[in-house]
Amino acid sequence: MTDTPVPSTATSAPLRILITGSAGFVGSHLVERFLNEGHSVIGVDNYISGQVSNTDLFVGHPRFTFIEADVSHGIPYEGETLDWVMHFASPASPPHYQQFPVETLMVGAQGTQNGLELAHAHGAGFFLASTSEVYGDPHVHPQPETYWGNVNPIGVRSCYDEAKRYAEAITMAYHRSRGVNTRIIRIFNTYGPRMRPDDGRVITNFVHQAMRGEPLTVYGDGSQTRSFQYIDDLVEGISRLMAALYHEPVNLGNPVEFTMLELVEAIEDVLVRRMSVEHRELPQDDPKQRQPDITVAKCVLKWTPQIELKTGLDLMLQRDAANR
Amino acid sequence: MTDTPVPSTATSAPLRILITGSAGFVGSHLVERFLNEGHSVIGVDNYISGQVSNTDLFVGHPRFTFIEADVSHGIPYEGETLDWVMHFASPASPPHYQQFPVETLMVGAQGTQNGLELAHAHGAGFFLASTSEVYGDPHVHPQPETYWGNVNPIGVRSCYDEAKRYAEAITMAYHRSRGVNTRIIRIFNTYGPRMRPDDGRVITNFVHQAMRGEPLTVYGDGSQTRSFQYIDDLVEGISRLMAALYHEPVNLGNPVEFTMLELVEAIEDVLVRRMSVEHRELPQDDPKQRQPDITVAKCVLKWTPQIELKTGLDLMLQRDAANR
Repeated sequence: MTDTPVPSTATSAPLRILITGSAGFVGSHLVERFLNEGHSVIGVDNYISGQVSNTDLFVGHPRFTFIEADVSHGIPYEGETLDWVMHFASPASPPHYQQFPVETLMVGAQGTQNGLELAHAHGAGFFLASTSEVYGDPHVHPQPETYWGNVNPIGVRSCYDEAKRYAEAITMAYHRSRGVNTRIIRIFNTYGPRMRPDDGRVITNFVHQAMRGEPLTVYGDGSQTRSFQYIDDLVEGISRLMAALYHEPVNLGNPVEFTMLELVEAIEDVLVRRMSVEHRELPQDDPKQRQPDITVAKCVLKWTPQIELKTGLDLMLQRDAANR
Repeated sequence: MTDTPVPSTATSAPLRILITGSAGFVGSHLVERFLNEGHSVIGVDNYISGQVSNTDLFVGHPRFTFIEADVSHGIPYEGETLDWVMHFASPASPPHYQQFPVETLMVGAQGTQNGLELAHAHGAGFFLASTSEVYGDPHVHPQPETYWGNVNPIGVRSCYDEAKRYAEAITMAYHRSRGVNTRIIRIFNTYGPRMRPDDGRVITNFVHQAMRGEPLTVYGDGSQTRSFQYIDDLVEGISRLMAALYHEPVNLGNPVEFTMLELVEAIEDVLVRRMSVEHRELPQDDPKQRQPDITVAKCVLKWTPQIELKTGLDLMLQRDAANR
């Protein structure tokens, strides 16, 4: 019923794209890419976890408009017809969403619904940024999109995990019952320039601790693994999914796994110096292991991550240092 | 922080209790019980799945007030201070929530939040009706409250299951971060008088098919099991939980399991006649097996179900016949 093509960024015609969370880490990289490709971008953010500096990068660009608004209370856009509404607004790191649990729940529910309604009204595509957190503490490894997850609905992380599961459910409901042309990605750990120094996730912690000359904080014994995707790989996957007519969730992440201690070694290699390590207790409900099965992305999008960890760390350190 | 007692219905002082979904099956039995105990009740319903006849039962009662409203868009109550806000509004049977997927998602998110905000403003207790559906198609049997469930976030039932998981998450968020005195129950299959004939769940299907002299519809081979709780047992459990200071979810259900074919036999015994059976295919995502572990309710509430299946079926048939 809904499989009428939405114009994609892969076509030559310039598009009008509204991005919620445009001042966030991933949002700001999308803005950059779409502007570079010749599209018009309307960024929306309330700066609950986004950074003003990420808006300042584009202010004055003739094809960039910014609206400061909390999308959970409505998206005050009254301009020309949109081609895409891309919902990337949400606190996304544990210290942020645990500081704002109700706001995090709301941007997953009301925020997603406001985006869906806007897309519906404009006949635009709707693109949801979901997360590997919907898999919770998985019993299946690696996680394919068909795995239903293992999430504690009442745990301290549930304000984020359940909000994203709800966001997926309402996106599918609008797709099935109201014909909105939707996309869903489940983003696995991603890193790169312009992450908040207080983001709280392991790569930013390590990079900023290293830059300050502090010991690197390792939770537990450091044997837990994570996969790390460089931001440019994610943005490429997003662009390809916009061009594909595929409505089920797609994992976007780098399946190569590293233990926390291997990550310490990679940082040591890039910086060419030894680091001291401080061990702390694992937080409550901390997922032990998460790794994407990217069969769907490979098959549907012909996409695989291109940037290796040390290359990405090097790029991140260079670009963040250049922006200081 | 939040463990200041809320007055309970077990105390002698009359309370003011607002019930969303008051025209629904469970809601209407709560209204009846609280009015009988001397409390004042404000019922709220928009009749998306509730029945006007369930409001008519109490119209004219000096302590009953009714507000017709969709609680997803706000609860327009401006009366005296409430002691309890009890959120029982939601389509709850698969044919209803699949007909209204977006409304079902909204009453779980915005509806729950509006109830929490109202409770917070009044310093009232907030009581959430959650469901055994949060366990999805469980891998653990029977299901204790600590089991995290196995729910398909993008399946056709997810509009209900994920809405309820979200409702639990936001209830815990308001409890933890805003000090609201909350309760959560997970209701397992419940039956009794005043269910909608088109409810779609197995006991109403069987009872109404039997009353019309039609064959009983059994999905699959009829070997899948369900547990069935009589409404009066559920209402007693709810009343006891209001009096307890316990904020984690509590299963309320009857752990005695019956296969669909045993349920057919029970109906035959109560009606003292043989039934013909028509087999149909199992619907997509239909949970194969669900049974409550009621250790918490036994321990915290000193509660166990008292009414056996044949007794309950007999009561249901008598009372529904009397209401015709």
